[in-house]
Amino acid sequence: MKTDLAKKVIFVMGVSGSGKTSIGQLLANDLSIPFIDADDHHPPSNIEKMSRGIPLEDSDRAPWLDILHGIAVKHLNTGCVIACSALKEIYRRRLSQSIESSILWVYLKGSYELIFERMNSREGHFMGAKMLKSQFDTLEEPQNAIDINITNRPKVIVQQIKAQLKMKTEFGVFGLGVMGKSLSRNLARNGFKISLFNRHVDGKEENIAVSFQQEYPELEDALPFDDLKAFIQSMERPRKIILMVYAGSVDAVLKSLSEVLAEGDIIIDGGNSHFSETNRRMAWMKEQGLVFIGAGISGGEEGALKGPSIMPSGDKEAYLKVQKYLETIAAKNSDGNPCCAYIGKQGSGHFVKMIHNGIEYVEMQLLAECYAILKSQGQTNDQIAAIFEEWMKDLGSYLLGITVDILRKKEGNDYLLDKILDKAGNKGTGKWATVSVANSGEPATMIPAALFARYLSFFKEKRITAAKVFSTTSIGDEISIFQLKEAYQFSRIINHYQGFSVIERVSNHNDWNVNLSETARIWTEGCIIKSDFMKELVEHLKTKDSLLIKLSQTLLKTHASAQNVAIEGIKRELHIPCLLEAVNFFHGIKTAKSTANVIQAQRDYFGAHTYKRIDDPSEKSYHTEW
Amino acid sequence: MKTDLAKKVIFVMGVSGSGKTSIGQLLANDLSIPFIDADDHHPPSNIEKMSRGIPLEDSDRAPWLDILHGIAVKHLNTGCVIACSALKEIYRRRLSQSIESSILWVYLKGSYELIFERMNSREGHFMGAKMLKSQFDTLEEPQNAIDINITNRPKVIVQQIKAQLKMKTEFGVFGLGVMGKSLSRNLARNGFKISLFNRHVDGKEENIAVSFQQEYPELEDALPFDDLKAFIQSMERPRKIILMVYAGSVDAVLKSLSEVLAEGDIIIDGGNSHFSETNRRMAWMKEQGLVFIGAGISGGEEGALKGPSIMPSGDKEAYLKVQKYLETIAAKNSDGNPCCAYIGKQGSGHFVKMIHNGIEYVEMQLLAECYAILKSQGQTNDQIAAIFEEWMKDLGSYLLGITVDILRKKEGNDYLLDKILDKAGNKGTGKWATVSVANSGEPATMIPAALFARYLSFFKEKRITAAKVFSTTSIGDEISIFQLKEAYQFSRIINHYQGFSVIERVSNHNDWNVNLSETARIWTEGCIIKSDFMKELVEHLKTKDSLLIKLSQTLLKTHASAQNVAIEGIKRELHIPCLLEAVNFFHGIKTAKSTANVIQAQRDYFGAHTYKRIDDPSEKSYHTEW
Repeated sequence: MKTDLAKKVIFVMGVSGSGKTSIGQLLANDLSIPFIDADDHHPPSNIEKMSRGIPLEDSDRAPWLDILHGIAVKHLNTGCVIACSALKEIYRRRLSQSIESSILWVYLKGSYELIFERMNSREGHFMGAKMLKSQFDTLEEPQNAIDINITNRPKVIVQQIKAQLKMKTEFGVFGLGVMGKSLSRNLARNGFKISLFNRHVDGKEENIAVSFQQEYPELEDALPFDDLKAFIQSMERPRKIILMVYAGSVDAVLKSLSEVLAEGDIIIDGGNSHFSETNRRMAWMKEQGLVFIGAGISGGEEGALKGPSIMPSGDKEAYLKVQKYLETIAAKNSDGNPCCAYIGKQGSGHFVKMIHNGIEYVEMQLLAECYAILKSQGQTNDQIAAIFEEWMKDLGSYLLGITVDILRKKEGNDYLLDKILDKAGNKGTGKWATVSVANSGEPATMIPAALFARYLSFFKEKRITAAKVFSTTSIGDEISIFQLKEAYQFSRIINHYQGFSVIERVSNHNDWNVNLSETARIWTEGCIIKSDFMKELVEHLKTKDSLLIKLSQTLLKTHASAQNVAIEGIKRELHIPCLLEAVNFFHGIKTAKSTANVIQAQRDYFGAHTYKRIDDPSEKSYHTEW
Repeated sequence: MKTDLAKKVIFVMGVSGSGKTSIGQLLANDLSIPFIDADDHHPPSNIEKMSRGIPLEDSDRAPWLDILHGIAVKHLNTGCVIACSALKEIYRRRLSQSIESSILWVYLKGSYELIFERMNSREGHFMGAKMLKSQFDTLEEPQNAIDINITNRPKVIVQQIKAQLKMKTEFGVFGLGVMGKSLSRNLARNGFKISLFNRHVDGKEENIAVSFQQEYPELEDALPFDDLKAFIQSMERPRKIILMVYAGSVDAVLKSLSEVLAEGDIIIDGGNSHFSETNRRMAWMKEQGLVFIGAGISGGEEGALKGPSIMPSGDKEAYLKVQKYLETIAAKNSDGNPCCAYIGKQGSGHFVKMIHNGIEYVEMQLLAECYAILKSQGQTNDQIAAIFEEWMKDLGSYLLGITVDILRKKEGNDYLLDKILDKAGNKGTGKWATVSVANSGEPATMIPAALFARYLSFFKEKRITAAKVFSTTSIGDEISIFQLKEAYQFSRIINHYQGFSVIERVSNHNDWNVNLSETARIWTEGCIIKSDFMKELVEHLKTKDSLLIKLSQTLLKTHASAQNVAIEGIKRELHIPCLLEAVNFFHGIKTAKSTANVIQAQRDYFGAHTYKRIDDPSEKSYHTEW
């Protein structure tokens, strides 16, 4: 423990006569760190006033507090104990300003009667006992200190302080689901002293946090709680708490937290909250004197444990206070940089994470479609796994890799995959991403296509009924593995182009200033859509030129295959929305003259919505009586 | 005018001695309608009390008011004048209950001094002048009456009343844009006496309402206003006002209206408001004592004038009070039924209208895609028009018809269509429909596809740049006109299936109880998506069985063509999202075993999201350590 405390500046505070100097001295000796008596650092004018029995004004104390603040700053690396009355909250704020996280408060608490008696038995102290009453009148008891009852002997008190100091952790995890547990272990493995909280689940005896803490050796020093107040009190100020709860319960959690947290404490929402909710919550928490950071986290269970990709946003200064923790637990690039970067203002982190998930939906759907095509050609799961494994060499991605594992997984003699019901679930981020795409004005068509593919999968009974009525007669030509691979590659380019285009557009619209290249970089490790292609994109996105043009060689090379796979897929009556849409979107974006003029004419015909003309660059609106 | 007034029950009210009987008698004679003196219809117990000089209690008056109410009801068809003191608002409410719209109030107003003098000069009246003071104490001046100053001679007063009565209109139109103007003319042509309002536009001298009213002979009797209060006062109670304003300004308009309208007045929002806003506004207006009805209106400028399709929703009883107006101006089916039907609770009318517009987006896009394919085969606009005209014979629709006109429209020697800029606009309902589809869980993929096609068209500069980099080499086979027609027919079936499926699902979710067949029926005339196919759907939608199965013969017949057109479109590198998606969706919905199991396995692999098994019908969730 000494190493931890050695890095702390410990203020021992209380009214005159509470024993600050003697306790502080003993504590400093015990911890082998310097001791400073604040009274030794008064400017001469104050000493003179006090010796004449004149109480100090706040204006007298300001320069003194600043001197002490300077002393504290000087001892940030070594640690020290400072005995200082610090009776008012404003004094304490002045002392700890901007170094709050390195300061511990110990409050020596005793009754007026007890201290008055002690004062009378002391000699040589330059403040008379008659001023004690005024000290008690001035005293504002601290909310964030270790309270110590001074009736005990000094040595016992020092032990009590040490025991209590040991309790204070630097970071809290609220919510111990799959992701919360993995993140907690990640934090602990990185040497952070953490508090863990999970609410007590009604009707269960188990204390979830305690059971979890006992399960993993790396959590030996972690403090588990199912009592919210105890959880909060176990952390240093300003507290830093990451929420890992369902998006739907964040508001309720914030309400209960705001009742027990103190000004300046920091809450990080690490769940998949909607970015507009994050915007609202930032304003709400600010009103409560708290700081709220939205942080998208990707990587699933394993990523959270070994290093996820983290997308924090909100107030940049607040972010700097938690940066250390998030960057330490994040995945690392090959050059050691953390896959965690400040995304931008407001809920931009959750927005970017939402689009990440949209891209993920598409990547997953593309694999399901490639699987559909290969299956329609009679390949077995093992054969398909071998094909995908081969693709890993130059189209490597996390999702492709796990699909190889999935295809090979057996249950006895059967493929497990074949036993899984073909109804795809969704937890809402794909829906949100689709809604955001629709609202953005950006034709990022593949995310909606992937979402609707999941929706369609849900109509299992309708599908079975329709399959009986509409039989399929597959009469397609064989698709070569190479063609399919090129189609897959082609479609992934369109998917990533669309996803980054939406981020760019919405970032511009909201003045978030999201760095697309940095976003790609923190997606190169830790997250579900990490891939070799993402690493390529980091460079491409450093300049503003269109990704399509930069990748034109690959698109030109693979287009014919993509076209052919789409055509053969249609012939075989396969449901391949993302492969189709990649090709179709590409055809659309490279059509100089579209047939939207027909639509404009129709709109003007029935609704007098007017149109613009190609032969009038003034953008004037025309209306025709058709 | 006599005919209008002859249908009204006119209550002449005021304190005893104000001249109700003599003025009422004169007025009735002048209008040739019966006169009733309320005092002749007191129950015997009241007459006895009054003759003894005992003031009546409210409990005495109740049966008397009910008798008078019955008399009023009996005269609803013929009209009559009833002289009745009706001093309190509760008396007036009792007299006019449920027949408010057929009643006119005339308030004979005079000072206590004047009436006291008159009372003293009268003989034989069975109430003493000493009670006059109590009458004035009791009097609650009406807010919704024609105020008449009784100092004038009776004959002059009758003329004044007649002049004022003439002012009262039965229906108001707020907002005189393209749609508001057409609806106003439609109402007036149907013999309704209407008030017109348009706010004064800053910086313009013109009074928009007055100019408009003077422009069209059918508006001779309409009353134009740019003063809101005068507009409101010009209408009978309860007032019925239809708003034809931009969705974005509805809240501001409601705020200003709620300040001048009176309890029970009815506002119909005839614009394209979002259904969730309509829900909110219904509650808000209810708090203000007003009634709010959301009514989707389709038909464009021409439909609004000659008979639109109207989709009203909200409180059913309130709807009955405006039903007459909406049904009269609506388009008519061949059997004479109006294309206006109560849709359901809340904002269901605006929801249904929004999906109507979504279907419309797709129908328009399909025509643009057919045009694209025909153009790619070298057909001229005139040739394409001839093809579409031929299709009208068995695939007739309003949109197909106007597209024929559009294709043929010339400007000198050039086709006007060729001069129109190929950037398609949208006013928001397509976006809303796409968002609603995403939120509904229903894979209605064609509406999003049509929306994104419009978005894509907007990137004209990107398209031109990309067209230079990615040149097109069309190597497709010729598509026959017959094949294209079948593909168009096939795609329209899928479009309508998807649209009605979304309505059904959202209606069920919200307990709106929308009648799909009725919805199709009111879309067979008046609206933009009216078509021969819609008439077919009215029957099909009368039962709950799947539309796809009912239309299976046509789908089976046209599927091969749809497939082939999709394939050739891809070969030619055409952007044909709706034709493609129709085929792709069909393939998806008839796939008994989809590859969504791959997605479920992936989700379980990285996020422990669990999966269900085909060999366990208990719907239990499984998780595998992959």
